[in-house]
Amino acid sequence: MSVARISEKGKSRVVDAMIEGGGRSIEFGPDRPLRLDSGADLSPLTIAYQTYGRLNEARSNAVLICHALTGDQHAANTHPATGKPGWWDIMIGPGKPIDTDRFFVICSNVIGGCMGSTGPSSENPATGEPYALDLPVITVRDMVRAQAMLVDELGIETLFCVAGGSMGGMQVLQWAASYPQRVFSALPIATAAKHSAQNIAFHEVGRQAVMADPDWCGGNYLNEEQSPKKGLAVARMAAHITYLSETALHRKFGRNLQDRETLTFGFDADFQIESYLRYQGMTFVDRFDANSYLYLTRAMDYFDLVSDYDGNLANAFMGTETRFCLVSFTSDWLFPTEANRDIVHALNAAGAHVSFVEVETDRGHDAFLLDEPELFDTVRGFLTAAAKARGI
Amino acid sequence: MSVARISEKGKSRVVDAMIEGGGRSIEFGPDRPLRLDSGADLSPLTIAYQTYGRLNEARSNAVLICHALTGDQHAANTHPATGKPGWWDIMIGPGKPIDTDRFFVICSNVIGGCMGSTGPSSENPATGEPYALDLPVITVRDMVRAQAMLVDELGIETLFCVAGGSMGGMQVLQWAASYPQRVFSALPIATAAKHSAQNIAFHEVGRQAVMADPDWCGGNYLNEEQSPKKGLAVARMAAHITYLSETALHRKFGRNLQDRETLTFGFDADFQIESYLRYQGMTFVDRFDANSYLYLTRAMDYFDLVSDYDGNLANAFMGTETRFCLVSFTSDWLFPTEANRDIVHALNAAGAHVSFVEVETDRGHDAFLLDEPELFDTVRGFLTAAAKARGI
Repeated sequence: MSVARISEKGKSRVVDAMIEGGGRSIEFGPDRPLRLDSGADLSPLTIAYQTYGRLNEARSNAVLICHALTGDQHAANTHPATGKPGWWDIMIGPGKPIDTDRFFVICSNVIGGCMGSTGPSSENPATGEPYALDLPVITVRDMVRAQAMLVDELGIETLFCVAGGSMGGMQVLQWAASYPQRVFSALPIATAAKHSAQNIAFHEVGRQAVMADPDWCGGNYLNEEQSPKKGLAVARMAAHITYLSETALHRKFGRNLQDRETLTFGFDADFQIESYLRYQGMTFVDRFDANSYLYLTRAMDYFDLVSDYDGNLANAFMGTETRFCLVSFTSDWLFPTEANRDIVHALNAAGAHVSFVEVETDRGHDAFLLDEPELFDTVRGFLTAAAKARGI
Repeated sequence: MSVARISEKGKSRVVDAMIEGGGRSIEFGPDRPLRLDSGADLSPLTIAYQTYGRLNEARSNAVLICHALTGDQHAANTHPATGKPGWWDIMIGPGKPIDTDRFFVICSNVIGGCMGSTGPSSENPATGEPYALDLPVITVRDMVRAQAMLVDELGIETLFCVAGGSMGGMQVLQWAASYPQRVFSALPIATAAKHSAQNIAFHEVGRQAVMADPDWCGGNYLNEEQSPKKGLAVARMAAHITYLSETALHRKFGRNLQDRETLTFGFDADFQIESYLRYQGMTFVDRFDANSYLYLTRAMDYFDLVSDYDGNLANAFMGTETRFCLVSFTSDWLFPTEANRDIVHALNAAGAHVSFVEVETDRGHDAFLLDEPELFDTVRGFLTAAAKARGI
């Protein structure tokens, strides 16, 4: 850490510091615990985050970006671990749909994650060792509560927009439900108000793959100096299939062979799709923590805004003044249009200001991360109109 | 073994014997090797099989049932390992759609399998130990060649019908393509002429899950007295999701909790779907061999009747006199209607006698194993008409 800002609010001690490798990190001391949905307190609490653009004088132009399961706070900068552009670099920047010439963009690593925010690999103050499975289970609402603490600390009362896809979209919905006054506009993309049985099923397969790896060591692999890479790679491979559409797989790979003319009659990666999946698994384990994968998939599985509001999603948004825009993708079978439309219906029932775009694409769930012109136009148009309404 | 029939044909020695636990097994000696697609010879060759009903005098009423990936020859009898009814017990029997009062039904364990036919757990004559990965890779065409040897040995020239779903359907198509004169009618259900990229992808995840298990021991777990149960269970769990539809998962499980009132904020199986999947994984490993899982998924991945016939599936069936009936299920996303319809189009182009039924159901790929009245009516109607044409 190089530069630290220490603020004292009442009895609270908050340290905001630069992180090596880029970005900032804010730590809430023992007197500022986060009360979790599980009933446990999380303390100390660290939130790693990035910002892009400048906060205006009125503090009215802040956009909070919520990342997906395997994303992180490096939305629009070179990733310190992979050296690749941020996961939404095509969306966020000067002149881009989320225009950093106009907006102050914040993206924080979710709690339970592994890129600097408190998660299972963080030090458990009770033992001085990594939490591992002693970290309480985290919910999407807990992630959002932590983000609200960060936004408070940045001196922002109302966010101009909260935006994100997939698990990020769940956070957007939770923000709009928990803090309607603090969300001027909301942009949930390719998401759902509750995780489906099929999605829970795929997550459970991933968790079982991790836990089946003896190097997982009951979760204590960091202490044991092990790493359940094989199990985590299998989990990633299974999940990766669900991010793509059958059509995209057929178009990109089909039954093409990988660097060979004929079948080898063996168990090597004869087909390109096999080679591609193995690569996806292999590279993932270098940048992601296995226990974080367990915690974050669990958070998504637990997400059920319908049940939280007594079985009627409209109750979550009753009386809201937030302006909503929802986006789904025709070939997304993980968070299909129907799941997004259910949210639109609830928002309509709640009398909310809502627009909805279904983007025609064959790229599946992953489309929210890709260069999809209709998505870009939608985001740009929605933010431009909202900025006008907000007087930015 | 209790009773053995030993026949000598030319120099060949064939032993047909009762297997303990039920059923029969036929062994082709070293002088009757099976030449595989890989170029290797498989010898000795054992084929374990079951029969139901009686072969008529004209030897014209034999129905060959081809089983799917995790099926076996116990189609219509109590399974010796699980004690449960055969996998197609509802379809095969006196008065049932495949009526054993009229037809002589044969079902053999595919080669590469693990229920008595030569597979990776069989003894490698070169070493006296289990083949493990020294078994040559098997193709669907190899399976069918082995079945043809069995059918020869049973003294049957022309099969009245070859029927099966999924990988069984692939065998049906291969039978019709390889031995058109020997197949009076063919009933491929919920299948495809070539395995899709997405299906290869899911199989690769399963194989990687098995191979990631250190108890797999590079395939030599039998010698090492280990068993890669955890890896195989994960493979089964992932595959099992693909056998069901999202709708069926939602209907059967939704977000229902398993024997509890509230979330536990842990990694136990809170949701019924998790508990169900874990059970599916756990019970599967007790009855299936991990290396067989590798070999049989590989056989399906390699299946590509289109490529085998120079990119034109119609060539596979040109001039055929076989009567075809194809069945698909609306909610089957593993072998969707489109993949089955492609076969129908090729059969039409080849001028074949073909009918096609798409059954409306929300039960996904698994529907071919379930009590689906429209499937039953279709099978019964097709066989009745074909039997009339055949003069049975």
